[in-house]
Amino acid sequence: MTKDVPFLLQPVGVVRSPLKSRENCPKQGSEGAPDAWLEIDPAFTEALDGLTVGCEIFVLTWLHKAQRDLLKVHPRGNPAQPLRGVFATRSPHRPNPIGLHRVEILEIQESGRVRVRPLEALDGTPIVDIKPVIQGTSGR
Amino acid sequence: MTKDVPFLLQPVGVVRSPLKSRENCPKQGSEGAPDAWLEIDPAFTEALDGLTVGCEIFVLTWLHKAQRDLLKVHPRGNPAQPLRGVFATRSPHRPNPIGLHRVEILEIQESGRVRVRPLEALDGTPIVDIKPVIQGTSGR
Repeated sequence: MTKDVPFLLQPVGVVRSPLKSRENCPKQGSEGAPDAWLEIDPAFTEALDGLTVGCEIFVLTWLHKAQRDLLKVHPRGNPAQPLRGVFATRSPHRPNPIGLHRVEILEIQESGRVRVRPLEALDGTPIVDIKPVIQGTSGR
Repeated sequence: MTKDVPFLLQPVGVVRSPLKSRENCPKQGSEGAPDAWLEIDPAFTEALDGLTVGCEIFVLTWLHKAQRDLLKVHPRGNPAQPLRGVFATRSPHRPNPIGLHRVEILEIQESGRVRVRPLEALDGTPIVDIKPVIQGTSGR
């Protein structure tokens, strides 16, 4: 398979974080998630050019420990909450377990290491994309 | 290959839009993009449960016409602008051409068709995920 095969993601880096297990992981970045490092693979560091400290970015990750065959979940893993379609939740369990994390850039190193906060992804989570947050009329 | 192979995305639906060619496509939804339909595959419609009209969602697409071997681009395709790393742009050309579109839900049909706006994706673009926008402190 080549990298041009449709629908095949290639990791461009990895998350380095003090979060080592799902049990200790906040469900959202805004719920006390720590600073973390994005370690971008040397093959892709050129793609970081133009990002600066203070920028807000979306980090897209591959939630490698998620289940892909669940279409409904109890929100926040709470069995007291009624089942809900995964497209209406931020559950990691979904047909394509892509994580979407909005963070601020705190530091950028020449080597392709980028410190960000707050990031709720586990240490070792593969990174598949980075996009600037667009401060347009739609706020995205 | 099974759907559990890591890093292999499966389409969960397709965009139906009046936008038929890249030449006519606005670069961002906020730049005059039209209403469009998300046609969710019957195998995945259950995952929509809990979404309602008026919700803001992120639609993640697979930008199937993008080039994956570009690390720098001229922003907005304008050669007068200096080259910039793709992670600092919303260019469709990037190692993993995932599109991220923030839209509002206008209508939901039982069959799994969801009308949204504004969406700048081309007709026929595969959909890989839908997530609610979280109205938390981080605004995401």
